[in-house]
Amino acid sequence: MYSFKNDYSEGAHAKILEALSKVSGEQNAAYGMDSHSLNAANLIRKKMGRGDADIHFLEGGTQTNLIAISAFLRPWEAAVSAEIGHINGHETGAVEATGHKILTVKADEGLLTPLLIKPILDSYTSEHTVKPKLVYISDSTEVGTVYTKALLSQLSAFCRENGLYLYLDGARLGSALTAQGNDLTLRDLAQLCDAFSIGGTKNGALLGEALVICNHALKDDFRYILKQRGAMLAKGMLLGVQFETLFEKNLYYELAEHANNMAELMRIAIRNSGFEFLSNSPTNQIFPILPDDFVDKLRQNFDFEIWEKTDPLHTAIRLVTSWATPEQEVERFIHYFYEL
Amino acid sequence: MYSFKNDYSEGAHAKILEALSKVSGEQNAAYGMDSHSLNAANLIRKKMGRGDADIHFLEGGTQTNLIAISAFLRPWEAAVSAEIGHINGHETGAVEATGHKILTVKADEGLLTPLLIKPILDSYTSEHTVKPKLVYISDSTEVGTVYTKALLSQLSAFCRENGLYLYLDGARLGSALTAQGNDLTLRDLAQLCDAFSIGGTKNGALLGEALVICNHALKDDFRYILKQRGAMLAKGMLLGVQFETLFEKNLYYELAEHANNMAELMRIAIRNSGFEFLSNSPTNQIFPILPDDFVDKLRQNFDFEIWEKTDPLHTAIRLVTSWATPEQEVERFIHYFYEL
Amino acid sequence: MYSFKNDYSEGAHAKILEALSKVSGEQNAAYGMDSHSLNAANLIRKKMGRGDADIHFLEGGTQTNLIAISAFLRPWEAAVSAEIGHINGHETGAVEATGHKILTVKADEGLLTPLLIKPILDSYTSEHTVKPKLVYISDSTEVGTVYTKALLSQLSAFCRENGLYLYLDGARLGSALTAQGNDLTLRDLAQLCDAFSIGGTKNGALLGEALVICNHALKDDFRYILKQRGAMLAKGMLLGVQFETLFEKNLYYELAEHANNMAELMRIAIRNSGFEFLSNSPTNQIFPILPDDFVDKLRQNFDFEIWEKTDPLHTAIRLVTSWATPEQEVERFIHYFYEL
Amino acid sequence: MYSFKNDYSEGAHAKILEALSKVSGEQNAAYGMDSHSLNAANLIRKKMGRGDADIHFLEGGTQTNLIAISAFLRPWEAAVSAEIGHINGHETGAVEATGHKILTVKADEGLLTPLLIKPILDSYTSEHTVKPKLVYISDSTEVGTVYTKALLSQLSAFCRENGLYLYLDGARLGSALTAQGNDLTLRDLAQLCDAFSIGGTKNGALLGEALVICNHALKDDFRYILKQRGAMLAKGMLLGVQFETLFEKNLYYELAEHANNMAELMRIAIRNSGFEFLSNSPTNQIFPILPDDFVDKLRQNFDFEIWEKTDPLHTAIRLVTSWATPEQEVERFIHYFYEL
Repeated sequence: MYSFKNDYSEGAHAKILEALSKVSGEQNAAYGMDSHSLNAANLIRKKMGRGDADIHFLEGGTQTNLIAISAFLRPWEAAVSAEIGHINGHETGAVEATGHKILTVKADEGLLTPLLIKPILDSYTSEHTVKPKLVYISDSTEVGTVYTKALLSQLSAFCRENGLYLYLDGARLGSALTAQGNDLTLRDLAQLCDAFSIGGTKNGALLGEALVICNHALKDDFRYILKQRGAMLAKGMLLGVQFETLFEKNLYYELAEHANNMAELMRIAIRNSGFEFLSNSPTNQIFPILPDDFVDKLRQNFDFEIWEKTDPLHTAIRLVTSWATPEQEVERFIHYFYEL
Repeated sequence: MYSFKNDYSEGAHAKILEALSKVSGEQNAAYGMDSHSLNAANLIRKKMGRGDADIHFLEGGTQTNLIAISAFLRPWEAAVSAEIGHINGHETGAVEATGHKILTVKADEGLLTPLLIKPILDSYTSEHTVKPKLVYISDSTEVGTVYTKALLSQLSAFCRENGLYLYLDGARLGSALTAQGNDLTLRDLAQLCDAFSIGGTKNGALLGEALVICNHALKDDFRYILKQRGAMLAKGMLLGVQFETLFEKNLYYELAEHANNMAELMRIAIRNSGFEFLSNSPTNQIFPILPDDFVDKLRQNFDFEIWEKTDPLHTAIRLVTSWATPEQEVERFIHYFYEL
Repeated sequence: MYSFKNDYSEGAHAKILEALSKVSGEQNAAYGMDSHSLNAANLIRKKMGRGDADIHFLEGGTQTNLIAISAFLRPWEAAVSAEIGHINGHETGAVEATGHKILTVKADEGLLTPLLIKPILDSYTSEHTVKPKLVYISDSTEVGTVYTKALLSQLSAFCRENGLYLYLDGARLGSALTAQGNDLTLRDLAQLCDAFSIGGTKNGALLGEALVICNHALKDDFRYILKQRGAMLAKGMLLGVQFETLFEKNLYYELAEHANNMAELMRIAIRNSGFEFLSNSPTNQIFPILPDDFVDKLRQNFDFEIWEKTDPLHTAIRLVTSWATPEQEVERFIHYFYEL
Repeated sequence: MYSFKNDYSEGAHAKILEALSKVSGEQNAAYGMDSHSLNAANLIRKKMGRGDADIHFLEGGTQTNLIAISAFLRPWEAAVSAEIGHINGHETGAVEATGHKILTVKADEGLLTPLLIKPILDSYTSEHTVKPKLVYISDSTEVGTVYTKALLSQLSAFCRENGLYLYLDGARLGSALTAQGNDLTLRDLAQLCDAFSIGGTKNGALLGEALVICNHALKDDFRYILKQRGAMLAKGMLLGVQFETLFEKNLYYELAEHANNMAELMRIAIRNSGFEFLSNSPTNQIFPILPDDFVDKLRQNFDFEIWEKTDPLHTAIRLVTSWATPEQEVERFIHYFYEL
C-alpha cells in the first residue's frame, strides 16, 4: 500500500548513492575532518554568503536539537517553543534529558511571534524560575506552515533586544524555502538566526542534518559536545558526501520543490472537493479535515497518519509527500477525491 | 600516502553499498521498525542461539556505550572499566555526561579480571561513594588483545555473584572473534554478557553498531532512550540493511578475518626484524616499539598513530588494518622492515 | 512593617530551639544515623500506622522534590503536575535539571483528578514521547486548597491501575491536615501515596522536610542519592531533633492549626467586607481579590505578595499566616477592612 | 564512648545557638536576602579585603562543590583533582551526576602542584577527551595537610596561564588557616583562587558553607543554580546568622585553633611514644600508624576511624578533634599512649 505517512520512507536520491559509491574506496580523514565534509560546509557557506559560519554535520533532528540547545544554554536557562514544537512533543524529553526546561506557548499555525514570547519574559524574571534564553522555531513548522521574512525579522530583532538566542530547526527547511509564498533564503537565515539546521534526512539523504552556527559566541568547543553526545561519526564523510551532493548544484532545492509540487496537487484536489485544512500549509505536509467514513475508505488504499479528531464526525489526517513521491501515486490518490 | 591510522578510513564494502542501492527505492517503516532491521536482528539472534535477545541498531560506538550504560544504571550506580577503556579515555566524558562515574583499574593488556575488580567492590560499600554496578570491557581491547572463553566465563560468574552487569563493547568484535587463539563465539557472549555490542563501523559498514541485550531486566522501554538520546534514525533501514548484509551469510567474519590477516603479515615482519610489541595483540591493531629514527622514516611513507614514548630512544606506534586494506600496501610496508 | 508574605519569615518555635540547645553538646552519629533522627522517624511511623515506611530528613522542599522524583523515575519517564504545581513554576527547572520532563494540565483550584490525567495517558503512548510515570500533587496546593479523602482515594486508585506513582508534596501538609473540611490523616496518606513529604520549614522548624517512602519498590539505595545530590547533612541530628520535637506530642498540628486560625479570621473579615477569593482555600494562604486602590493603601501598612491582576481594576493578593503570626497583627489587618 | 571520629559530632557553639534564639522571632526576608546573610557576607568580604566578591551561603560541602563546579563548567569541561580529593572519593559521584568528569592525579600528601597537573594538560588536547578546566584542591586536605602561600601562588599562576579555574574546597579552612606553619590568609585566597568555600559545619556551625566567588566571569546568575539544585533555604537567615556570629569577631579562628591545639597535644604524645604518621598534618585530623593490637585496645575506649592497613601488623587510624573537644578527653586519650 502506498504511504503518505512521512518523508523518510524511502532511502536516498540516486545521485547521493552514486556519490557514496564513488568515494567509498577512498581513505578519508575521520570524525568529520575529511575533504568532503569540509567541501560541503564551504558550499553551504557560499550559498549563505557567510564565510564565517561554523557548520557541523549530525545524524538526525532530535540529536541536532538536543546538542545545539544543551551546548548553547547554561544549566538554568530554558528554551521557549510553540506547544506543538518538535522538541516539546516528539523528542521523548531529549532537551529536558540534558537538563533544560522548555517553556511553551500556544502558537497559531505553529508560528512564534514577539507578542507570544513577551509574556514569558515578563513572568520569568527571578531565580525562582528558569531563565528564558533561547527561542526555538521550526521552518516549515510541525503543521507545515512557513515563516515570512517579515515575521522572522521581527522575531530576530525581538530576540536580540532581549538577549535571547534564535534557533531554527530546519528538519524540513528545503520544503519551507521552496514553498509558495516563501520569501526567505539561506542568506536571510544566516543573518537572522543565531543557529539553524538544514535537514537532509527528510530531503533525499540517507541521514544527516547540517547545523549552522552564526553567532560567534556559540561556536567554541562545539566538536567536544558532538563527541560527548555520540554524534561524531567515525566515517564523517558519509554525511559530508551527501551534503556535497545536495549543495554542489541545486539538488537540495529541486528535491524539496518536487515534494511541494506533489503536495500542491493533492491540496488543490482536496480543496476542490470542498474540504478544509487544519493549517495553511504551502509545504509537503498537508492536514485535510475529512469525514470519518471517508477517512476509513481512504485507509484501505493508502497509508497516512491520523492527526486528530476535529469534531465527532470529522478527522484531520496528515499527508506527507517527499522528494521520491511518484506523480502517479498522487494522481491515484486524487482520483479518490474526485470520485466522492 | 597510505594510512594505517584506523579501520574507519574507507567507506563500506561493495555488497553493503549494493544492498543499500537495491532497497533505496522501497518505502520502509521508520525508526527501525522496517523489515530489514527486523530481519537483521533475527539473523543475529540465530547466530547467537538466543531468540529472546533484544537487538537495537545504533549509529556509533560512543553513542551505544553512553545509551546502554545510562539506561542500565540508576543515578548513583557506576561503571567499572580498565583505565585504558574507551569510555574512560576516548569518549569526551560521555558516560559522565549522563551522570555516572567510571571507576577505573589498571589492567594488564587492557583485560579485566575478577581479581582486579574485587578491591573496588571491597572499598565502595557505603552511600558516601558510588555503587559499582556495571563492568565495562571491550573485545578486542583498546590495545588489540582478546578475552578467552575461560576469562570471560570467570568474569561473568564473578559479576553474577556480585550483582554486577557485564557489558562488552564490541566495536571491534569481528576482529576479536576471528583472531588467532580466540575461542569465543557470539553464542558464548549471549550466554555470558548481560549486553554487548557488535560493531559495524570498523568492519565494513558505513556506520552502525548492533546492541544486544540478553538480560531480560534491562530490556524494557529501551526504544525510549534511543529516541531521547538522538540515536533513533528516521531511516532505520540504513542500519538494518547493512547488518542484514553482514550477517546474511558470513561477510562480517570474512571482513574481520581479512583485517586480521593483514595485521598478521605485518606482525610477523616486524617481529622477524627483531622488534617487540606493547601488547600481545592477535587482532587488527598492533603496537610495535620502534627506534625513533626509524619511526620518522616510516612516517614519510605511511600514515599511522604515535602511541607513546616507551623510552628516550623508542616509540610505540599503532598500526591498524581493515577489511579494505590491500595486501600490496601491507607488502610495501613490510618491505621497509626487511630493508632495515 | 508586618509581613503576610509567607510562612517562612520567622525562625523556629521556641521548643525546637530549646531542644537543639539541649542536645547540642552531645556527640551524635553523623549523616542522619543519630538517635534523634531515628527516633523522629519512629514517631512519624507510629502516627502513620506504617512501621515499614522509610523516612528520610532533607533540608528543603525543592531539594526533596527533585531528589524523590529523580530517584523514582528512569531517564525517559515524566512527572504529571498541575500547571501551577510548585515543581513546574517555582523551582527553577529543578526536576528538568535531573533530566525529567514535567507534563502539565490546567487544574481547577490546583487539584488533580483522574479525569484531568487520563488524556495525558491517552496521548503519551509511544517512544517518541516521554512516558508519564509519576503524578505530582501538593496538599495544601499552591492556591491553598486541599484534597479530600474521596478525591485522593480516587487518584490513588487511578494511579495504581495505570502503573503511576503518586507523590504528594507536603511542604504545607500541616496546614492541610488541620484545615476546616479536611478529612485526611497521615494514616491515609501512608496508604494512598507511594511517597510524600511532611514539611517542617513552613511549620515551625528552622528547616527540614521529612520524605516518607511507602512503596517498597522505591526504597532501595535512597541514601545514595541523598548524598549525591548534596542533601545529606553531616549533622543530621539538626533535622532529627526538630522533627522529634514536632511529632513527640502534637506540636506539628498545633502550629499548623494556629496558622489556619489566623487565616480564618482574615478570611471572614474579607468576606464580610464583600470581597471574593481566587480559590477556596481553608488553609493558611488566602487570595482575596481587591480593588487596586485598596491594595495600594494596604501595602503601606503590610507586606504581602501581589498574585495577579484579575481585571483592569482588581488584583488578587496572597496573604500567608504562620505558626508565629500574632493575633494582634491579624486584628490590625482586619481593622483595615472594617474601616473601608 | 568518646569519639574522635569526626568534627561534626557535636551541634553548634553556644554563641551560635544564642544568636539563633535571639533572632528567631524576627521576620526576615527569605532565600538569603535577609539582613543577617547580607551582613555576614560583608563581614567576610571585609576580612578578605575584596568588596567585589560574591558570597553565597549553602548547607553542606558536597552541595557546595557540586553546585560550584557545575555552574562554572560547560558540559564537556572537567575538574582536575587529587585522587584522594573529596569530590572524587567521598561524594557519591556528585560532580559526575551533574555531567562532569573528574580527572585525577596521585598527589603526595594530597597537595596538587603544577608539575602534577601539567601532564594532564598535555594529554587532554582534543575533542575526543574532556577538556580540563577547573583545578579542585582542598585546604586542609583530606589527609590534614595544608597549602603554603608559595605553593598556592605557584598553582594560581599556573592555572591562570593555562586558562584553568582554581577552586579551593574549604570545608576545613578554619583548621588550615590556624595551623602551625600556615602562612595563608583569607586575603590571599581571595587573590589566588577563582572561588573557594569557607566551611562552617566542621567549625562550630549547625550547618553551612560560605561560597566565595572572586572571578567576575563566574558570578552571573549564580542564585538560579542555588535554587535549581535545592540549595536555597527559605529561611536563609539560618545560615546568615551563624556566619555573622563566626565572623563578627574572631570566633571562626578561635574555634579552629582549639581543634588544632587538641590535635597537637595528641600528635606530640603519639610521636613521643615512637609512632609515625601517614601524613604531615598540622591540623585537626591526624593519622598515626599503630600496631594492630594497640588499635584494638584503643577502640575499646575511644571511637575513631580505621584509615588503612599500612603493613600486615600496622594500621593507620584517623583521629579528629573539633572546636568542642574537651581537653580532659584528649588527656585521657594521651594517657593510653604513655601507658604503653
